[in-house]
Amino acid sequence: MRATVLHGPRDIRVEEREAPRIEQATDAVIRMSVTCVCGSDLWPYRGVQPIEGPTPMGHEYCGIVEEVGGAVRSVKPGQFVIGSFATSDNTCPHCRLGYQSSCVSREFMTRAQAPVLRVPQADGTLVATPAMAPPELLPSLLTISDVLGTGWFAADVAGVKPGSTVAVVGDGAVGLLGVLSAKQMGAARIIAMSRHEKRQKLAREFGATDIVTERGDEGVLRIRDLTNGVGADAVLECVGTQEAMTQAIRSTRPGGGVGYVGVPHGVSLDGAGLFFTHVRLHGGPAPVRRYLPDLIDLVWNRKIDPGKVFDLTLPLDQVAEAYRAMDERRAIKALLRP
Amino acid sequence: MRATVLHGPRDIRVEEREAPRIEQATDAVIRMSVTCVCGSDLWPYRGVQPIEGPTPMGHEYCGIVEEVGGAVRSVKPGQFVIGSFATSDNTCPHCRLGYQSSCVSREFMTRAQAPVLRVPQADGTLVATPAMAPPELLPSLLTISDVLGTGWFAADVAGVKPGSTVAVVGDGAVGLLGVLSAKQMGAARIIAMSRHEKRQKLAREFGATDIVTERGDEGVLRIRDLTNGVGADAVLECVGTQEAMTQAIRSTRPGGGVGYVGVPHGVSLDGAGLFFTHVRLHGGPAPVRRYLPDLIDLVWNRKIDPGKVFDLTLPLDQVAEAYRAMDERRAIKALLRP
Repeated sequence: MRATVLHGPRDIRVEEREAPRIEQATDAVIRMSVTCVCGSDLWPYRGVQPIEGPTPMGHEYCGIVEEVGGAVRSVKPGQFVIGSFATSDNTCPHCRLGYQSSCVSREFMTRAQAPVLRVPQADGTLVATPAMAPPELLPSLLTISDVLGTGWFAADVAGVKPGSTVAVVGDGAVGLLGVLSAKQMGAARIIAMSRHEKRQKLAREFGATDIVTERGDEGVLRIRDLTNGVGADAVLECVGTQEAMTQAIRSTRPGGGVGYVGVPHGVSLDGAGLFFTHVRLHGGPAPVRRYLPDLIDLVWNRKIDPGKVFDLTLPLDQVAEAYRAMDERRAIKALLRP
Repeated sequence: MRATVLHGPRDIRVEEREAPRIEQATDAVIRMSVTCVCGSDLWPYRGVQPIEGPTPMGHEYCGIVEEVGGAVRSVKPGQFVIGSFATSDNTCPHCRLGYQSSCVSREFMTRAQAPVLRVPQADGTLVATPAMAPPELLPSLLTISDVLGTGWFAADVAGVKPGSTVAVVGDGAVGLLGVLSAKQMGAARIIAMSRHEKRQKLAREFGATDIVTERGDEGVLRIRDLTNGVGADAVLECVGTQEAMTQAIRSTRPGGGVGYVGVPHGVSLDGAGLFFTHVRLHGGPAPVRRYLPDLIDLVWNRKIDPGKVFDLTLPLDQVAEAYRAMDERRAIKALLRP
């Protein structure tokens, strides 16, 4: 099969690879319907996160089960399934607490920018849709695998509740779907921080009530202005840089929460500074498995349309252009058709 | 009056000072029944936290109202009152959310190691007991002002619930009362980290089920051993050093919470490290005012006896020995009789 491999900074190729097969009795092999490029793929693409030799890429996936191992019980060939970017057995103590992305058997998926994918721990990782997925729902169903699940987790752990005032730092696809998530959770006011017109527009479509274009100290002041000097009840940090984290913490009211889901790169927090803010901090790799049934339900019943974050669709063979377009911020998120 | 003043590292004196008077219409002046030395007083005493000139000390207090300003409505002369170490108007948005120690009118109290004390924002800071406090309850009532309220906040924000497995880092008075708080909140298992026999004994009296004497990596391994490799549901960080914070975070299960109340000194957190632990972090100066009514009720009805943390009682004139005994860890906490 033809699959995506990163060879070095900005050197991404589609090349011939052996198609995956069942290796463990708990595996499933799925034929990908659609896949995509994640903002976090850009860290190694840009060379910020070093790789050790050629690295197969991709961790967002949905498709049709082709084959399952002998121990798999919950999904079967022919079903349409979605899985988390982190595998889980869904039975260990961490899974039972809802932190499947810290499962004792966790593997971070990779190799998903390809036509066929092996998924370990299929019973604990995959969830089937009620019936075969109609083509028009594929982009939205795909977002559940990571980008929507991650935005949802950010809003959840930031403590968004009906009536909350929420700020979202980061206007990538996760941030935008953080806006959508906060809206679904009943936020009364959602302040999106963005300087890009196209992203501002989508943020508003997803439920943002205010746009803040300022950053740093000015951005914090603007949030304070908009909240009568109090700060936001809940802030979603969807970037992973020091600037974004600092901005998120300083925009939050005492007793409010920051949900941080941008993988931190070079982020350091001063203990005493954090102490006197009274801000709750919770984040990490989103336990997407926890949310899969509810999010599938929302998409399946056309309550939400998160697939709008895909503003570029390319055949898998043009994956290099997909990475380039996201790297240069020409595209919010690129969908790939295997 | 004779009051306590810190002049420099380990130079603490009782000297003649002008007795405080009502300055604002929202003030009360109280005659101190008992006061004490706080673990946090040791930071400036040891010179770790610099002072700017002679500094009146003390922020834990309870006593009888002598006089109130013209605007004070909720307490009156002759009543026995307890107040938080942080003043609050109890009406601003932060107060209404229960974060009175981030009140827009907050002052951190000082000057309480003295026979008479002026308390700003009396209506929002002080709570009266149901009747005049009996002498035998004075030590326990005094703890509510800070050390019990702080241990309680740590347990609360760490997320202690009925049945929880809890670990407490720090065997000072706050840590020991963190144990008591966790017990009150229904924790099934409470692991106290302590190397001191006397403190271990008190921890057990307060409800600790296990004692861990190891620290650092070994301490973390011991907690994992005791929790079947899972980690504690909730961990109370009651020290404020890098070692204690690291130990607390690493002892917590994914999705569990760290309540940190030790004022951080030189603590720095690596964003990526924290991200992958999945640990919730919440702390800061305890909003004691939020807990005052409930904690007074527990002490008043003899449900808890937090005053046991005082293992040294001295007249105020011997405050220097009180600081020395705590500095050298000969005493857990020193009560002062003005």
